[in-house]
Amino acid sequence: MRRWNGWGDDQFNLELPDGGRRFLEDRIGAASPLSDISLEEACARVPISRLPAHRDVILDAEDRVRHARGQSLADWLAMRSGEFGVFPDGVAYPESSRDVKALLHYAADQGVSLIPYGGGTSVAGHINPVAGEKPVLTVDMGRMNRLIDLDRESQIATFGAGTPGPLVESRLRALGYTLGHFPQSFELSTIGGWVASRSSGQQSLRYGRIEQLFAGGLIETLQGTLEIPTFPASSAGPDIREMILGSEGRIGLITEVKVRVTPLPAHESFHVVFFPSWDKARAACRELVQNRTQLSMLRLSNAIETETQLALAGHPGLIGMLESYLSVRGSKHGKCMMTFGITGSKRQCSNALKETRAICSGYDGIYTGRKLGDKWAAKRFTMPYLREALWQLGYAVDTLETATDWDNLDNLLNLIEENLGNRLNKKEESVHVFTHLSHFYPQGCSIYTTYVFRVAASYGETLARWKTLKDSTSTVIVNNHGTISHQHGVGKDHAAFLPVEKGELGMLAIQSLCRAFDPAGLLNPTTLVDQ
Amino acid sequence: MRRWNGWGDDQFNLELPDGGRRFLEDRIGAASPLSDISLEEACARVPISRLPAHRDVILDAEDRVRHARGQSLADWLAMRSGEFGVFPDGVAYPESSRDVKALLHYAADQGVSLIPYGGGTSVAGHINPVAGEKPVLTVDMGRMNRLIDLDRESQIATFGAGTPGPLVESRLRALGYTLGHFPQSFELSTIGGWVASRSSGQQSLRYGRIEQLFAGGLIETLQGTLEIPTFPASSAGPDIREMILGSEGRIGLITEVKVRVTPLPAHESFHVVFFPSWDKARAACRELVQNRTQLSMLRLSNAIETETQLALAGHPGLIGMLESYLSVRGSKHGKCMMTFGITGSKRQCSNALKETRAICSGYDGIYTGRKLGDKWAAKRFTMPYLREALWQLGYAVDTLETATDWDNLDNLLNLIEENLGNRLNKKEESVHVFTHLSHFYPQGCSIYTTYVFRVAASYGETLARWKTLKDSTSTVIVNNHGTISHQHGVGKDHAAFLPVEKGELGMLAIQSLCRAFDPAGLLNPTTLVDQ
Repeated sequence: MRRWNGWGDDQFNLELPDGGRRFLEDRIGAASPLSDISLEEACARVPISRLPAHRDVILDAEDRVRHARGQSLADWLAMRSGEFGVFPDGVAYPESSRDVKALLHYAADQGVSLIPYGGGTSVAGHINPVAGEKPVLTVDMGRMNRLIDLDRESQIATFGAGTPGPLVESRLRALGYTLGHFPQSFELSTIGGWVASRSSGQQSLRYGRIEQLFAGGLIETLQGTLEIPTFPASSAGPDIREMILGSEGRIGLITEVKVRVTPLPAHESFHVVFFPSWDKARAACRELVQNRTQLSMLRLSNAIETETQLALAGHPGLIGMLESYLSVRGSKHGKCMMTFGITGSKRQCSNALKETRAICSGYDGIYTGRKLGDKWAAKRFTMPYLREALWQLGYAVDTLETATDWDNLDNLLNLIEENLGNRLNKKEESVHVFTHLSHFYPQGCSIYTTYVFRVAASYGETLARWKTLKDSTSTVIVNNHGTISHQHGVGKDHAAFLPVEKGELGMLAIQSLCRAFDPAGLLNPTTLVDQ
Repeated sequence: MRRWNGWGDDQFNLELPDGGRRFLEDRIGAASPLSDISLEEACARVPISRLPAHRDVILDAEDRVRHARGQSLADWLAMRSGEFGVFPDGVAYPESSRDVKALLHYAADQGVSLIPYGGGTSVAGHINPVAGEKPVLTVDMGRMNRLIDLDRESQIATFGAGTPGPLVESRLRALGYTLGHFPQSFELSTIGGWVASRSSGQQSLRYGRIEQLFAGGLIETLQGTLEIPTFPASSAGPDIREMILGSEGRIGLITEVKVRVTPLPAHESFHVVFFPSWDKARAACRELVQNRTQLSMLRLSNAIETETQLALAGHPGLIGMLESYLSVRGSKHGKCMMTFGITGSKRQCSNALKETRAICSGYDGIYTGRKLGDKWAAKRFTMPYLREALWQLGYAVDTLETATDWDNLDNLLNLIEENLGNRLNKKEESVHVFTHLSHFYPQGCSIYTTYVFRVAASYGETLARWKTLKDSTSTVIVNNHGTISHQHGVGKDHAAFLPVEKGELGMLAIQSLCRAFDPAGLLNPTTLVDQ
């Protein structure tokens, strides 16, 4: 069953190998865990619902607990301490666009706030209810999870918006297709959530971001049904798709999503190259993407992430051999690991591999074959489970991400790492910080930074540590030409930083759209635009 | 010098070969030209300006004539008959964002309508003034035509919005880069106009549409300056770039455009394949694009366009040899010509050529090498000059274009051709109609249809013929899952059809944006949204 207070399936646990624990203790000290409340205790804290009765609205405490929070570290601290703050007053599980329409009528008639809920995997507070006079109804789209249609000629699939990643892929795979959208949250997040939050997947180099995959669909709004027709491209005015992408529930509830799919590839494999230094590794990645080499996936870990990953990998024999081999070839301290994927016809893959190896060689990259790449692919969706293992040891983990142009990459990356690494100095706490680049564009790339710190003696103090780290780094990002989010969205945690990025008039544009569709501000208030 | 009443440089003329004339006479009959008024006569028709005095506003009649109309057939008929209807009351030529700001203040203070003007190449009435109480000032951006900055690392160039295609490319070429955006209007249209109208270039398969190239910039609005920062990608809410793309002057005046550029390719070449039938040709193109073969350009002429192009090409020797060769290989009546371009590194081009030839062979395509492809490339921007030659013979030419998904391609293409071909039957006039597909996506492609008919005995009747053809076919397009425009934009000619495509709520979104930035409706009224 799904964990009520953390990531994923509660039958699946990822152990931290002993070497990993020693590595962290060495870096930031030994830690003591905080104790978590139970689901029963959480349910006992749920207050009486303020919602007027409705056939489709469930007031059950467990439903309300399970829909109260997402997966940010602040959410974890709330769920494990029991300090939820606000619970939704009820949950609805619509099964059709008609049900969603009825809920919108109910909300408008009764003055109820609606929060659309996909997989509940937000790490930016998208689905958290906020305190206010209006009762809050969370609308869980999970029952609208069918493959409705597949147009093989135009390669367009139509899905219910609540379809989660594994179901999207298994339905398509059975028919010989793939969407190719693999965010880290893939196991739980939904196709409608991807659209609403502008997500990006690990193989975006081949398949594109959700912006490139989203072809049209249905959105139920307080003004009626918005139907976005599918065209391969159009110059007929501003693109309505792009107003729904990233709308985070403020314009309406996405009920049907049409996406561009691809026949299953003949070949796919993942490979690893090590570079002796960050400078050479970064330059190789830039050349690969600016050269339009047909890769499907590319990820570059900086030296600390490389060291951390090898320490936490739990294959001492294999890693030992690898370290010796790399050391002989001149790649030792400061080495950076690059993982790449090739996908397509045999000819395309063979060409891409040749091109990639040639470019990497030019930067002293040492190609190590498929072994580590295959391991990455096998574990690609399990990394979030590691957070649970670390939590049980008393370590809190969170990530921050942005994207910037190439000419600003090192500057911003260093500012982010320095800020996170030093911000708790006054509290004499160390923070272990490491970074990878995982989405590459000719113009620049994403920066994805993980930070690990010890939980404090209390939940309150732990939350304060997180808030200090998160808010100060968000400020660093938007003040230094980074977007407040490359793939997680705005939600509530980033809303205060959005105006720096969009400017007064950019915010005017977004606000005017939200107000046109929702003048009373019933839909997901304070998400995206914090007013 | 630029032609005041038609396309391009008046020193450049394209002759229609005798064979071409006979071909048309055979299809739709011999024609008699209408007589054109002179520039002096046009200037004499310009009324007194209604504009209050301003240092930067030119009231000269010739300036006003030269900015009164675009390049649609209706525009040609207006310019050549002298029936302009409305002239702008004045023209301004700002040289900086500060000048543009001053003009916006002037417009707001004095209640003046502003029409942003790039290259004046609109074929949908974007820049035509309309009758109304407010005086109209056309703002020609042509003096803001500098390369302002080039960031080689992030591959971003910053241009003044009024920079025309040839200047964009020559400035970049000198530094080793290309934008790669080559719409048919390239010689005259501007980078700001491309953004405002969501244009697409002939090599969009490699470089993308202007949506993919536009990275950010400055837009002067009545509410202040909107600055769009550059990020390689972002999930921070709806994308403001996408609201400016296709805004057609309704939100503000684009003054600075940042675009994603590419180093000049090591290799580029164009090739031609003939297919024995439309069905096989269409299937080959679909496979090529769905297979993600690294082509830079792809164009497929249907059988009538292929026949027409060969007849109008004016190389009887070469064409005769080609026809014999194709006939021997089994490709005779109904054959379809496919032109493709490959661009990139030597390895990429060699692979793309092999992949393309292999796929085409599977559909009985006959590869004829580079000769015809090179001819296409050499003449790629001269085709609009042919319109002048045909006009002088008494033939009117216009084009219509859309895009649709693959599963609807033949249906829509046939409906468009049938409607154009038969619509003047009551007048006992034949229309020569032919089509190519020139922008390909895994999901579908563009449909670009050319129609040629004889001018009537009067300008009024000729305009009526055009209006019948244009409006009825636009109706066919939007009622049959086509976008009202794939690359020409909405302007005034398509505005009435846009609501069918966008729906009531799509229009609400666009209108709310326009109103937020321009509550008084001063900017390019009736373009895009006809109210």
